[in-house]
Amino acid sequence: MKTLKVAVIGGGSSYTPELVDGFIQRREALPLAELRLVDVPEGREKVEIIAGLTRRMLDRAGMQARVSVHFDRRAALEGVDFVVSQFRVGGLDARALDERIPLKYGALGQETTGAGGFFKALRTIPVILDVCRDMEKVAPGAWLINFTNPAGILTEAVLRHSRVRVLGLCNNPINMTIAAANILGVEPSRVFLQFMGLNHLVWARVYLDGRDVTARVLEAMAPAAGTPANVAALPYDREFLLGMGYMPCPYHRYFYMLPEMLQKEIEAAGGQGTRAEVVKRTEAELFRKYSDPGLDVKPPELAKRGGAHYSEAAVSLIDAIANDRREVHAVNTRNNGALADLPGEAAVEVSALVGAHGAVPLTVGHLPPQLRGLLQHVKAYEELTIAAAVSGDPSLALQALAANPLVPSVAVAKQLWAEMSAAHARYLPQFAGR
Amino acid sequence: MKTLKVAVIGGGSSYTPELVDGFIQRREALPLAELRLVDVPEGREKVEIIAGLTRRMLDRAGMQARVSVHFDRRAALEGVDFVVSQFRVGGLDARALDERIPLKYGALGQETTGAGGFFKALRTIPVILDVCRDMEKVAPGAWLINFTNPAGILTEAVLRHSRVRVLGLCNNPINMTIAAANILGVEPSRVFLQFMGLNHLVWARVYLDGRDVTARVLEAMAPAAGTPANVAALPYDREFLLGMGYMPCPYHRYFYMLPEMLQKEIEAAGGQGTRAEVVKRTEAELFRKYSDPGLDVKPPELAKRGGAHYSEAAVSLIDAIANDRREVHAVNTRNNGALADLPGEAAVEVSALVGAHGAVPLTVGHLPPQLRGLLQHVKAYEELTIAAAVSGDPSLALQALAANPLVPSVAVAKQLWAEMSAAHARYLPQFAGR
Amino acid sequence: MKTLKVAVIGGGSSYTPELVDGFIQRREALPLAELRLVDVPEGREKVEIIAGLTRRMLDRAGMQARVSVHFDRRAALEGVDFVVSQFRVGGLDARALDERIPLKYGALGQETTGAGGFFKALRTIPVILDVCRDMEKVAPGAWLINFTNPAGILTEAVLRHSRVRVLGLCNNPINMTIAAANILGVEPSRVFLQFMGLNHLVWARVYLDGRDVTARVLEAMAPAAGTPANVAALPYDREFLLGMGYMPCPYHRYFYMLPEMLQKEIEAAGGQGTRAEVVKRTEAELFRKYSDPGLDVKPPELAKRGGAHYSEAAVSLIDAIANDRREVHAVNTRNNGALADLPGEAAVEVSALVGAHGAVPLTVGHLPPQLRGLLQHVKAYEELTIAAAVSGDPSLALQALAANPLVPSVAVAKQLWAEMSAAHARYLPQFAGR
Amino acid sequence: MKTLKVAVIGGGSSYTPELVDGFIQRREALPLAELRLVDVPEGREKVEIIAGLTRRMLDRAGMQARVSVHFDRRAALEGVDFVVSQFRVGGLDARALDERIPLKYGALGQETTGAGGFFKALRTIPVILDVCRDMEKVAPGAWLINFTNPAGILTEAVLRHSRVRVLGLCNNPINMTIAAANILGVEPSRVFLQFMGLNHLVWARVYLDGRDVTARVLEAMAPAAGTPANVAALPYDREFLLGMGYMPCPYHRYFYMLPEMLQKEIEAAGGQGTRAEVVKRTEAELFRKYSDPGLDVKPPELAKRGGAHYSEAAVSLIDAIANDRREVHAVNTRNNGALADLPGEAAVEVSALVGAHGAVPLTVGHLPPQLRGLLQHVKAYEELTIAAAVSGDPSLALQALAANPLVPSVAVAKQLWAEMSAAHARYLPQFAGR
Repeated sequence: MKTLKVAVIGGGSSYTPELVDGFIQRREALPLAELRLVDVPEGREKVEIIAGLTRRMLDRAGMQARVSVHFDRRAALEGVDFVVSQFRVGGLDARALDERIPLKYGALGQETTGAGGFFKALRTIPVILDVCRDMEKVAPGAWLINFTNPAGILTEAVLRHSRVRVLGLCNNPINMTIAAANILGVEPSRVFLQFMGLNHLVWARVYLDGRDVTARVLEAMAPAAGTPANVAALPYDREFLLGMGYMPCPYHRYFYMLPEMLQKEIEAAGGQGTRAEVVKRTEAELFRKYSDPGLDVKPPELAKRGGAHYSEAAVSLIDAIANDRREVHAVNTRNNGALADLPGEAAVEVSALVGAHGAVPLTVGHLPPQLRGLLQHVKAYEELTIAAAVSGDPSLALQALAANPLVPSVAVAKQLWAEMSAAHARYLPQFAGR
Repeated sequence: MKTLKVAVIGGGSSYTPELVDGFIQRREALPLAELRLVDVPEGREKVEIIAGLTRRMLDRAGMQARVSVHFDRRAALEGVDFVVSQFRVGGLDARALDERIPLKYGALGQETTGAGGFFKALRTIPVILDVCRDMEKVAPGAWLINFTNPAGILTEAVLRHSRVRVLGLCNNPINMTIAAANILGVEPSRVFLQFMGLNHLVWARVYLDGRDVTARVLEAMAPAAGTPANVAALPYDREFLLGMGYMPCPYHRYFYMLPEMLQKEIEAAGGQGTRAEVVKRTEAELFRKYSDPGLDVKPPELAKRGGAHYSEAAVSLIDAIANDRREVHAVNTRNNGALADLPGEAAVEVSALVGAHGAVPLTVGHLPPQLRGLLQHVKAYEELTIAAAVSGDPSLALQALAANPLVPSVAVAKQLWAEMSAAHARYLPQFAGR
Repeated sequence: MKTLKVAVIGGGSSYTPELVDGFIQRREALPLAELRLVDVPEGREKVEIIAGLTRRMLDRAGMQARVSVHFDRRAALEGVDFVVSQFRVGGLDARALDERIPLKYGALGQETTGAGGFFKALRTIPVILDVCRDMEKVAPGAWLINFTNPAGILTEAVLRHSRVRVLGLCNNPINMTIAAANILGVEPSRVFLQFMGLNHLVWARVYLDGRDVTARVLEAMAPAAGTPANVAALPYDREFLLGMGYMPCPYHRYFYMLPEMLQKEIEAAGGQGTRAEVVKRTEAELFRKYSDPGLDVKPPELAKRGGAHYSEAAVSLIDAIANDRREVHAVNTRNNGALADLPGEAAVEVSALVGAHGAVPLTVGHLPPQLRGLLQHVKAYEELTIAAAVSGDPSLALQALAANPLVPSVAVAKQLWAEMSAAHARYLPQFAGR
Repeated sequence: MKTLKVAVIGGGSSYTPELVDGFIQRREALPLAELRLVDVPEGREKVEIIAGLTRRMLDRAGMQARVSVHFDRRAALEGVDFVVSQFRVGGLDARALDERIPLKYGALGQETTGAGGFFKALRTIPVILDVCRDMEKVAPGAWLINFTNPAGILTEAVLRHSRVRVLGLCNNPINMTIAAANILGVEPSRVFLQFMGLNHLVWARVYLDGRDVTARVLEAMAPAAGTPANVAALPYDREFLLGMGYMPCPYHRYFYMLPEMLQKEIEAAGGQGTRAEVVKRTEAELFRKYSDPGLDVKPPELAKRGGAHYSEAAVSLIDAIANDRREVHAVNTRNNGALADLPGEAAVEVSALVGAHGAVPLTVGHLPPQLRGLLQHVKAYEELTIAAAVSGDPSLALQALAANPLVPSVAVAKQLWAEMSAAHARYLPQFAGR
């Protein structure tokens, strides 16, 4: 196998050491030749810290890969095999606005769902499509592995508006697999979860040695074990969960327990701060650690940041492609009929066979109504969001917000649009002057 | 053409004189031979009053039709050509509960949508399926023209669980046509509205002399002209309406302006009473009028009751079938692919060609996402509602309530189920002992 | 209603007096102001004869419409309301080749199906798309009413490759309606046929006063009553016909009785000549009649030409559009989901509601397998034919021919392509040099 | 892993030693405890010979599995884990009739396609559904691995009419994979073929190290390398093959080269005999070998019988299920939307992820028209065939035969039905007296 060149867009992210650790774990399978950390000039300090830590980690592992820092994105992408995307337009400050402003209007503020996720999508889609333009020019056969949120919407934007080969990735599925295995008291390799849905709105059927054990898992998960750090761990109603019949992801809480989740957010905002504000403090501390010239491993504190198993998801996916492993991964990819209730051109999060040829979704067919209605509603919102982000048409933006099941009314949608589009104006050039 | 025998289930309804007036208007086209008013024994007084007024109205019109009153439904249905269904299980008292209880939990209380409509469906579906069993036995070729709400859900229940030929009917489409014509300043016959959606969630494209004038209509309708008596006439946001691009029905307000509509309900409940409570007073007054032996026409006060153009919709539909007119009516019928975004077996409210062969929907194809998501979500709720009503499974009932976009959360769904299923227990025998 | 300007592409066709007669019959409803006969310079003599007869016919009817002859198509289309397309690229000589060459290879030669229809499509699609380019420029709101064969394929080509409003028309449906009425012994207005399928591969369900009487019609039609002049009237197998359960069109014989129909063609070719050769003689005689300055009505001999009820189909359709009649016509139009078994963008021949807004298909849903398989196979062939005609790619042409169920094998497809593409080279510029 | 009990329906088949050899190859992975050979009493001699050879083969391999012979099927199926189905109703004599009779009428006679395959399906479906009834009773969790032809039709019959877990299997896909690898000059494990279609009408896209190399394979396969023994190895037209763009299976020749294949059959029938007649001779010789008490391995002559890689397909599939391998196999299973152009409930032959949970198809989406039309046509025929076989309705049988693209006309379909249903009457009890 030939050696690998990988570029990381948003290389200065505090997550990067996770990714580096993943490459170290799989160094036999993935002969990394170059790791190019790409960032914006404002992020120079952070990305240099990351580059230093990365070099020390690779050194310790005895790996020769060249680590470089880049602010000229197009140049940095020349000839790479994989582009990992984990950038954040506007940084944590923009995220904090996404989280705080909606609360004023009694609406949820969350990084990936609701009005917050909507504005994150509007800010990010033009940038990721620019990345794609660069890739089409200087790395036409490369794969884009996208972690940037909202990962499903971004994947669909790329599928609809570029020719780049893309897979969207999230650590939800891997975490759900581990949670199910823990509940069942077995090794994760013995369970098979077939995933079906959208990013942050994905369900699974759970099989143990081929037997459907979903009900057993649901019974045990009602008290909310295994919720990630960024989602309030409110327990599920047991009767509701069993009636639903499929294992939900942690983010389903926003749809099923909206008033309670909103209340938690309001409390947090008045207390320790919104998630972005907490993360900012965690990050400051992390970067202090990262700067320590004696540190040459991923520090344990990184686990608190919220990206559990992130590196496993990313690097095992790259391995599956690079080494044509033809194994099952849960990815965001083109539906193509796998979920019969959604448009063929939609991005969906599903179990798929992944190899050097790409990802082929496992067929799901039709879903029962208790999953189908919400799923279709959210997908329609996502489609409108992409149309708004690409066109810069504020009328489409209003339709998108109003179509989001977490936005309480058209009137609130208008208020959110007015205040948030102004607050983020710097990152929404496509709407300027309209 | 042979003479017609028509049975009215819920013959004691205050709406019946509307229907009778309709038959009088079309007496040339529809030679009515028998009108059988069917009701429950508790409604004897009212149905006798209606029968008396009906006889005086027909007399005045010089019509010979035999008017009879029946409490044995099966006997009453023997050999009829049409069954008009306009009954109300539990009467206005049950409706008042549907409207009041949800308010306690911050949820909408409305006759046909939200939790109220859900419980109305649970009470009504077993009864209408009993009517169908009777029809299959004693009037196998007859048509069931269903006005009972929620009309779309009931139509789908009949389509899925009986062999009876059924069409669901609502006066929304005819009122929307008149509203559009008024806005355009033309005769209704010059406009063509193609309807697409669900009962009480129907949209239209509007054509004048073949030109699509939907945007013109939307521009003018934002200030809420033409809203029916039972829906608070809150104005639409103009920008939102134009962006949506299709003419909505008045009931869309519940989905787009939920907090405001809820506020209106709360105010009404604390003031003049809920809609059912107001209607009870109107009805008492109407029946006083109806008892007047000198009254032999439809009294003008009936217009306030809320069923504008009800008779026109009903009797013109019967005319189209009985006389094989092959003309376009908006009906609730089997989708069969007309709306490509909904299941084939779903009931939809669409423009359809109606003749003696029945109704064939005009094809709609796919809808844009701003309509599609909400529509699919509501249809999934409807499907769950029917499954719950037919099975008597409380777990399905919880899934249905939780899937209703007007119910704020799973927790509220549980509370609503607990209190409302107890309050209506008498009319929900299918859930007894489960 | 405003006055009408109509252009006829292929105005020199022997069918034109039919069309003129139709306008005369409906002169109250359709105030014809101009009739522009457009043709190629080679057809000058014929079109002048037609123009003369047309003027005499209109005069006799007391109509003032201006009749003009044009060889500059774009100029002729300026500002018209309707364009009727009935031209024939290469004339009857090309048709005779379509009919004769396949016989050499044991393949069917027929104007609209098989290899003959395929080459007619290849010759005609570029020309009709040129007509559309002209219409987009100089008559952007006009309707194209297309009679040119293969009418379904041409309609789909226009739908896929232009913005022109088009309806494809055939006299099969009207003839089938009359045949069914004759069998049932009633007026055609009492029967309702819902059509479903493709041009020259259309089926119908037959209703009399709303009752499904298809089986009764099939029982009587087995002996082949009512077959048009250009299709050999071989009787249907009664058992097969009843088992199929839908009323087929006359052209279905080519698919169900291929060896027998081929035999008839071979006999005809060796005797009175192929259909084109017979028609050439009929036409010569017709034009002799048409030239007679004393003739001012449609001569009875025209009936032999094969276009029975052609004028009725065309002019009643124009009437439905021009006067917004919103009545049912069988047309070729965009499927849009009406036939759930075919692609949404396919042209289908279906009953549709026609008014000034255009045609909206009546929904059909899924078809039973005995109809579905053949229908889908032929549609796939049609799609390939359009792709070949537009691209000029001989590889696609071979795929299309091989996908035609009437072409016996790939080897024969290659032979047909070789000889026929050479014979028609003058009319297939898109394939030149490839 | 628990030990395995396997029953073979048609245990006396000459193929059984292949299967036994497969179990020997995988004895580490599949601890075979019992092999039950089930057959009809008329086959006692053969099945005893097979049982003897099987015991000697297992002995030589040092395996302890118990080998038994059964004529009471239900008893034999009690508690088994897998049922392998490879029986032949009517034996090779019936097959010879399927092959010879159609030739009289100028129609193809072939075991799995055309009229021959149709009658084989009619004879076999009632029997396999009886096997399923037995399995539902005495081995409810067992898997049915069906090799009996026509394997796709039988799988769909089982899916539609029983609750048995079934996978249909054919050695075409494995042979195509090997053929592609040979063409590319690589190990089969390096190529990935995604299969899509129906049994004996399956196509593949071919990937080498993730690159689509289908065109390269087509270029090389035109001269017909790798055709199985029972299909005449006529070369493909190179231009046609490249234009088609997907790798076809050997059986596609019947559809693309019908006259030539028919000619080969006629020649064979007049010379060495039809395939069944040849096989009868081969079989006689094989059974002579099998009887040799000194023989304790699969004899090399078995390769001539036509089932190359049959054991590999079967035993690796059983391994994937029994050991929950979650790897990709090409199987016949429920479509469920994988092929968007076919009904969800159809059986399709596709690449699927196979583990203890069963088979989940890899999504294919829509196919290009050159594949789609033929595929849909054949599937419609298959659906009619199942309906005819299950109902015993001769009218459906006629529709099925007429819908088969290899049957030249309705008239021939009637003749074939008359003669073949009489010839096979003993095995078609469902049609008796109708």
